[in-house]
Amino acid sequence: MQHTVLKSCRQCLARIHTSATSFGNVELTSKRYPHLRRGRFSQLTSDDVTHFRQLLGPDRVLTEDLDGYNTDWMRSVRGASQLVLRPRSTAEVSAVLRHCSERRLAVCPQGGNTGLVGGSTPVFDEIVLSTSLMNKIIALDTNSGALTCEAGCVLEATDAYLADHGFMMPLDLGAKGSCQIGGNVSTNAGGLRLVRYGGLHGSVLGLEAVMADGQVLDCMSTMKKDNTGYDLKHLLIGSEGTLGVVTKVAISCPRRPNCVNLVLLAVKSFEDVLATYRFAQTQLGEILSSIEFMDAASQECVSNNLKVTHPLPGHPFYMVIETAGSRDTHDEEKLSLFLEEGMQRELVIDGVLATDTSQIKSLWQLRERIAEALLVDGYNYKYDISLPLHAFYDIVTEMRQTLGDSIVTCCGYGHIGDGNLHLNMTSREFDGDVLARIEPSLYRWTAERGGSISAEHGLGLKKRDYIGYSKSPGAVVLMRQLKRMMDPHGILNPHKVLPEES
Amino acid sequence: MQHTVLKSCRQCLARIHTSATSFGNVELTSKRYPHLRRGRFSQLTSDDVTHFRQLLGPDRVLTEDLDGYNTDWMRSVRGASQLVLRPRSTAEVSAVLRHCSERRLAVCPQGGNTGLVGGSTPVFDEIVLSTSLMNKIIALDTNSGALTCEAGCVLEATDAYLADHGFMMPLDLGAKGSCQIGGNVSTNAGGLRLVRYGGLHGSVLGLEAVMADGQVLDCMSTMKKDNTGYDLKHLLIGSEGTLGVVTKVAISCPRRPNCVNLVLLAVKSFEDVLATYRFAQTQLGEILSSIEFMDAASQECVSNNLKVTHPLPGHPFYMVIETAGSRDTHDEEKLSLFLEEGMQRELVIDGVLATDTSQIKSLWQLRERIAEALLVDGYNYKYDISLPLHAFYDIVTEMRQTLGDSIVTCCGYGHIGDGNLHLNMTSREFDGDVLARIEPSLYRWTAERGGSISAEHGLGLKKRDYIGYSKSPGAVVLMRQLKRMMDPHGILNPHKVLPEES
Repeated sequence: MQHTVLKSCRQCLARIHTSATSFGNVELTSKRYPHLRRGRFSQLTSDDVTHFRQLLGPDRVLTEDLDGYNTDWMRSVRGASQLVLRPRSTAEVSAVLRHCSERRLAVCPQGGNTGLVGGSTPVFDEIVLSTSLMNKIIALDTNSGALTCEAGCVLEATDAYLADHGFMMPLDLGAKGSCQIGGNVSTNAGGLRLVRYGGLHGSVLGLEAVMADGQVLDCMSTMKKDNTGYDLKHLLIGSEGTLGVVTKVAISCPRRPNCVNLVLLAVKSFEDVLATYRFAQTQLGEILSSIEFMDAASQECVSNNLKVTHPLPGHPFYMVIETAGSRDTHDEEKLSLFLEEGMQRELVIDGVLATDTSQIKSLWQLRERIAEALLVDGYNYKYDISLPLHAFYDIVTEMRQTLGDSIVTCCGYGHIGDGNLHLNMTSREFDGDVLARIEPSLYRWTAERGGSISAEHGLGLKKRDYIGYSKSPGAVVLMRQLKRMMDPHGILNPHKVLPEES
Repeated sequence: MQHTVLKSCRQCLARIHTSATSFGNVELTSKRYPHLRRGRFSQLTSDDVTHFRQLLGPDRVLTEDLDGYNTDWMRSVRGASQLVLRPRSTAEVSAVLRHCSERRLAVCPQGGNTGLVGGSTPVFDEIVLSTSLMNKIIALDTNSGALTCEAGCVLEATDAYLADHGFMMPLDLGAKGSCQIGGNVSTNAGGLRLVRYGGLHGSVLGLEAVMADGQVLDCMSTMKKDNTGYDLKHLLIGSEGTLGVVTKVAISCPRRPNCVNLVLLAVKSFEDVLATYRFAQTQLGEILSSIEFMDAASQECVSNNLKVTHPLPGHPFYMVIETAGSRDTHDEEKLSLFLEEGMQRELVIDGVLATDTSQIKSLWQLRERIAEALLVDGYNYKYDISLPLHAFYDIVTEMRQTLGDSIVTCCGYGHIGDGNLHLNMTSREFDGDVLARIEPSLYRWTAERGGSISAEHGLGLKKRDYIGYSKSPGAVVLMRQLKRMMDPHGILNPHKVLPEES
């Protein structure tokens, strides 16, 4: 086992590849989900298109080659939008929504379109409102680390900007090369470092959003504390574009650590994964910045489907542990003691410590490229649940038994430090029978253990009908009231988050 | 300067003394604020009291000796409630509110009554709904640190319970001996360790609240991640009891650190305070758990009014810096290097490092007992604002010049790591002329610099009319809509948070 400690910061993580091939083969969402009914919205007319061209200019009103906007990157849903609008400012978003509201035209706000629950693509013919051109950094307060930027700033590019000033984004996820901060906020993205830096409800300081009727809701602030009235920004965080379109974000960015270390561990049982997790918490304490777990099936999928050579093949479980701290000698000593004692206690069977940037990148790819590898199998039944740790891996074993040969892969991985399991099954093609054996029994199982049926991916289209497994009837009633209050005509991202009223 | 490093954890901080003497002298709120008008609520009848006695039993329905419930601990506001109810369960809170809703009786929810903006006491004759008897710990998940407890759990006692299990509350404030977790959540309390553990919007995992009509809103979860629909719990966090009564809370508790160090520093200028803050961020990094600042006037007030001997008298500025980490040798080395280099750079003039529990308690008292010391002067004009750090202390100097001899003390202290200044002026008795010279010019000054007019204290009664200095008109309109939606008869904590509609 190597013990060299990396002194530079981690960079250049794997991107999810979103090549735009073969979108045409994807089944229309309205066919896959035949119970869905288009809302009573107006039909787009040539007058509308003319109006938008006058507003935005012809280059930012797209009516052709819309497959990349209509289809999600997993190729699991496909809408039939005829129009994509690419505003450059809050005023333009406001003017667009004012018109859509008056005309009762439905709108699907879209950031990097990296969502996993069918939330960022139109279901029928909603107008796609893309935030991609709103990608300016507005300000960085180098005393406090408060960054203010437009919604379309891509996570990785924003983090690179911050790196130049000694700061970092408090969130990090596999889709960083494409996902946008506005989408991150709208979906309350979690990711790899939540265990250290917390979630977006904690780190977003302020935001600006445009409401369904075109009014601009100014909740901007760069202050860490502001207890003046109801904190409305939290309504927008995680509401998946159904209550408003986030146009600007202020976020609290931590200082970039002086030293980052990364280690891949092989572990012989899930009990030992839990024991290693607890041991890491006590031994690494305040320098722990990420603690991830992967099972053998997920790693075999990466090795086989992406032709990646695994540094520690053939073990039942793996963990990726990242530390980030201010003093390299202290971090090295903590990590060395953790690894030595972990091996003495036989918690850790084998391990690899990253020694340079490319090695770090390789190690992270084993975790970050699982989603991409699964897609190679064919269709991906993707679940993202929170569970108490004592029940964390049981559902993977149970699903494997239930589904047997009807699937290609069944694997579990995820953010064990947050109690967040990514459970994935694949088949060559979409198979309704497989889906029926997974849902809703998986959700029931999760609810019985006090878990959440969507930890960080949101509900979007695919999970909205199962909200009742994680939220009380009274809470859902209040959510509907909120939606009606903030978007009375229901034009913002229809068919998402809340089930149709029966 | 001493360099011995403390190895035990910090305990036994100063309490704010809330002796119940001389309440009778406090002017009625309705007299001090003559523009306030009692809402069109019903008058309490003997039938109501009989109903509540049947519901709760006679011992938990109080109609006498209500001064301690009607008056805030600063003796700055006094209501005229004739009835205090002390439910023991969510079901009882629900039954109480159902009756109040049907009868249109106004209610003032009350936790530890340690609020600073007149939010926790009745204004007129609202029924006081005290959560003090709902003080059970429900569960602690020792894997994740998720604590579930009733709203009336006192912060200090809850932290002591957690200490026995190796965890700690993520928040800490001077009022810990009296304040309750339900009140902390309802006011979005900040406190001394927000710089390390973040705010309650980040650490509250779930909550249960009773709505104005008596319905129980179940948003309980012990999961760190749960993206299933709109995250309603954030509406309750910081809404000061005006949207619902928080009855249960689940909160994410960090592991208790193995070693805690505390140092008091004397600094010669505010520029050096800022430089020391930045230097502490880079040198202490991940072990920094609290960074507080106090000016000379605040320390003289503590010394003179509370007869406390100051260990470093006569300096213009002070800082209290706490570190908390997992390995004592590493923390000692970081702190030693920080102090040595800080003195070499002449940022730090002098310092005291706590060596035992009683010394730590003494040092913290210099910061935590300022609020108590100010009250000895007479009347306290209390402000709690967020500001960008470059403008942080200017307002104290400006206020001192503006008010001159008309006041006894003008001092600034607070959570510099959060950009949160506590600005306080005192006079022997309440003086409307002094108040008129402070408000609203102080709020305008704060707003012009992008700050918040209430960082962590909330708006309550005293600051509600100034909401417009920190929130946009559109945001206030949306807040009113929320209030009407969730409390259509306005019975919950009337006269608080939102200004009367003109």
